Amino acid sequence: MTDAVLDHALGQRDAFLARLSALVAQPSVGADPAYADGMESARRLLESRLADAGFQGLRRLTALDGSGQPAIYAEWLGAEDAPTLIVYGHYDVQPPDPLDLWQSPPFEATVRDGRLYGRGVSDDKGPMLIALEAMIAFLEVEGRLPVNVRLLLEGEEETGSPSLAPILAAHRDLLKADAVLSADGARWRADLTTINVGNRGNGGFEITVRTAAKDLHSGRYGGVVPNALHVLADLVSGLRDAEGRIVVPGFLDGVDEPSDEDRADIAAIPFDEAALLADLQTAPVGEPGFSFLERLWLRPTLEVNGMWGGYTGAGGKTVIPNTAHAKFTMRLVPGQDPDRVRKAVLDHLRASCPPGATLAVSDERGWAGAYAVPQLHPLLSAAEDALEETTGDRPIRVRIGATLPLTELVRTTLGLDTVMFSFSTADEDYHAPNEFLRLSAIDEGLAAWVSLLRKVGRQDPAEYSAFRP
Amino acid sequence: MTDAVLDHALGQRDAFLARLSALVAQPSVGADPAYADGMESARRLLESRLADAGFQGLRRLTALDGSGQPAIYAEWLGAEDAPTLIVYGHYDVQPPDPLDLWQSPPFEATVRDGRLYGRGVSDDKGPMLIALEAMIAFLEVEGRLPVNVRLLLEGEEETGSPSLAPILAAHRDLLKADAVLSADGARWRADLTTINVGNRGNGGFEITVRTAAKDLHSGRYGGVVPNALHVLADLVSGLRDAEGRIVVPGFLDGVDEPSDEDRADIAAIPFDEAALLADLQTAPVGEPGFSFLERLWLRPTLEVNGMWGGYTGAGGKTVIPNTAHAKFTMRLVPGQDPDRVRKAVLDHLRASCPPGATLAVSDERGWAGAYAVPQLHPLLSAAEDALEETTGDRPIRVRIGATLPLTELVRTTLGLDTVMFSFSTADEDYHAPNEFLRLSAIDEGLAAWVSLLRKVGRQDPAEYSAFRP
Repeated sequence: MTDAVLDHALGQRDAFLARLSALVAQPSVGADPAYADGMESARRLLESRLADAGFQGLRRLTALDGSGQPAIYAEWLGAEDAPTLIVYGHYDVQPPDPLDLWQSPPFEATVRDGRLYGRGVSDDKGPMLIALEAMIAFLEVEGRLPVNVRLLLEGEEETGSPSLAPILAAHRDLLKADAVLSADGARWRADLTTINVGNRGNGGFEITVRTAAKDLHSGRYGGVVPNALHVLADLVSGLRDAEGRIVVPGFLDGVDEPSDEDRADIAAIPFDEAALLADLQTAPVGEPGFSFLERLWLRPTLEVNGMWGGYTGAGGKTVIPNTAHAKFTMRLVPGQDPDRVRKAVLDHLRASCPPGATLAVSDERGWAGAYAVPQLHPLLSAAEDALEETTGDRPIRVRIGATLPLTELVRTTLGLDTVMFSFSTADEDYHAPNEFLRLSAIDEGLAAWVSLLRKVGRQDPAEYSAFRP
Repeated sequence: MTDAVLDHALGQRDAFLARLSALVAQPSVGADPAYADGMESARRLLESRLADAGFQGLRRLTALDGSGQPAIYAEWLGAEDAPTLIVYGHYDVQPPDPLDLWQSPPFEATVRDGRLYGRGVSDDKGPMLIALEAMIAFLEVEGRLPVNVRLLLEGEEETGSPSLAPILAAHRDLLKADAVLSADGARWRADLTTINVGNRGNGGFEITVRTAAKDLHSGRYGGVVPNALHVLADLVSGLRDAEGRIVVPGFLDGVDEPSDEDRADIAAIPFDEAALLADLQTAPVGEPGFSFLERLWLRPTLEVNGMWGGYTGAGGKTVIPNTAHAKFTMRLVPGQDPDRVRKAVLDHLRASCPPGATLAVSDERGWAGAYAVPQLHPLLSAAEDALEETTGDRPIRVRIGATLPLTELVRTTLGLDTVMFSFSTADEDYHAPNEFLRLSAIDEGLAAWVSLLRKVGRQDPAEYSAFRP
């Protein structure tokens, strides 16, 4: 069975690569003001393509105070009686550093061995363009889309989406829809057809332990005054028992043990834990009683990302440091309330601080809850059907250990669920040098998007109502 | 009872201050090659003074390979039948940084409020010059010294005395003596007449914990792979029990519990622990069952001086660090064998390393044992008598929590005991900005040195033999 829209899309592979290369050539690094021109040129390139293709209502969305990088909005709303989807992607990319580790320039898309290399090809310019070009193929061949679409192309995903909540809040009416379809949220593995049905949340802060008015000499005071590094080590060590269980009272409040069915589903997933650990040159750790994938997807973490204090230069210094620092982040799972988790961890750290030591908290970040798509959500079923149709395999439902703030944010702000439908893969070195996108993902992605949009176009918007507040 | 030598010495106070100021003006910072000229000009100034005053055999001592900063040697050996003392001091000083915290230039000796400020005035140029000028007063007034003296003025004390052992070994014959009298080793307090009868030893190393081939993303791997910072925190925390006892097997081997008499002596020392802790804005820690001063003087320490790993910049980074570092030093007490302590700590750390983590050791330093003067040593008695004579108070025997590598080194290399007879005080901010020497220490020191040299001159060298191997 051929599909004229898909044939059209696949027939333009060279044009697709040229468009993606042009987009990669705009260095849209949101974190660094030096790349402001690259952000703007990336926006213009996208806006021009959307306008030419027939999208309407093109505008830039910002928080009410106008701060931050604008999101690009466009819409096509001519599919009467069909559902309305917010299609999400982001045009900003990670910084290219360290530059000397790139084998080809980060902002020149380069094909090698069946892969396209360049900053942003996998996260998220490639997957976003697959979504856009699949829709444009409909407009070019049929003059219409099977569904109503509101595009939301964010410019701050790589800097923690600070404006996303204000943008959603400020444009609630404009963003009326039945669900969100995200072109972001990488596939787990290249060797298995999967679909992401949830992600962990996150949050974090920095602590500073102080034990005396100043650094003290280890000869004159060693053995009689506290050492801020010893206190910090005790605090970090005291977060877990000897077997790796997090022992912070209240940390696990609200977290359900996985059901037998969940466990059986996860156990059925083909996964070579030993090969992964060998590749990483490490041994597994974690909470007893849970499998590797259960720990990764269904259990929260409490991780120290950085720790420092005292003399860290060459040679030695016989100092008893009076100050020590640690940066913590957590990955949260469904059932955990970010505010309560935050309080539980801080209360535990404060209660564990010995006499003579004080603890200050700074630089709080995140506090997004976890997200899981309702198992019977119509967009999820349509996405699974589309993947099965285009790959031949029924996708396995998996989770992401990482965090997509979008998912929980649109749920709490707009009352919408999100299905992740990206065609990048988690091993494609996004956030690192030599980011790449498998060229095979382009055809797979175009086919799956065309198939999915047709399927959603046949759904009744009323099916979606049950999942909205 | 007047003493013509002492009168002469005290009568030259202005000249003394001028000489000390001239010595401070030579910036003899041994750690920094940029100060090589200052090291050389300090040596020349001292050598010229010693030669003019009548010291003989002036030469520079180095290790056999000629490396490092030379020590200045000179002798006066005309006191037939009297004991022979090695008189020790050091002409190198600590770096002056941070320069902007000095209230007057570090290399311009400046009098303010009864104190002389300048780098090295307290450690050790002032105390060394007190010793030298007391001896020179004898030579100027009486044409002779009461004792035989071999001067050993080191140039590497502030950089860890790397050449001291090779110098002692290479010049064993030249350094034949009955005991060592050190012008280094600060007095404990300004408000109490004390004498140091021992010091702790030291040693140290750096460890690097590695848990995986690379840093890993806390979303993709959080909860399933080890975190080098968690491992390091567990290692550091695992060195002590909850009450502060070091639990490393073998660490305390050979350490005697203090005797009831030791404890009574220490308990009798007037010491306001609460005032000290309030001043430091901290609370006491340490091994249960030992008083503050017992812990400081008689119990070993195991201290982390620096610790670092992961992301330590601004903001956050969701990384599971694969590498973490810590610098450790120990203060050792009599009975502990440095080699065995080193092995005990490393064995314990290695045994505590969990699967998936490796531990590498680097940058070993020190490993000097503790030292205690034999309680009945004739030079100690003479020094106590001299202090009692000049201050009116019988000195209280105290210890130094810090380390003077000299003391154990001359004991093991030359078989000699050392009495510390410095007139600096431990609060004089040596190793910090605004180092100072109390002006009152100059007269006290000159009087005590004159008195001590006379007393030793009346001792029989045979009294010393019992204390030599």
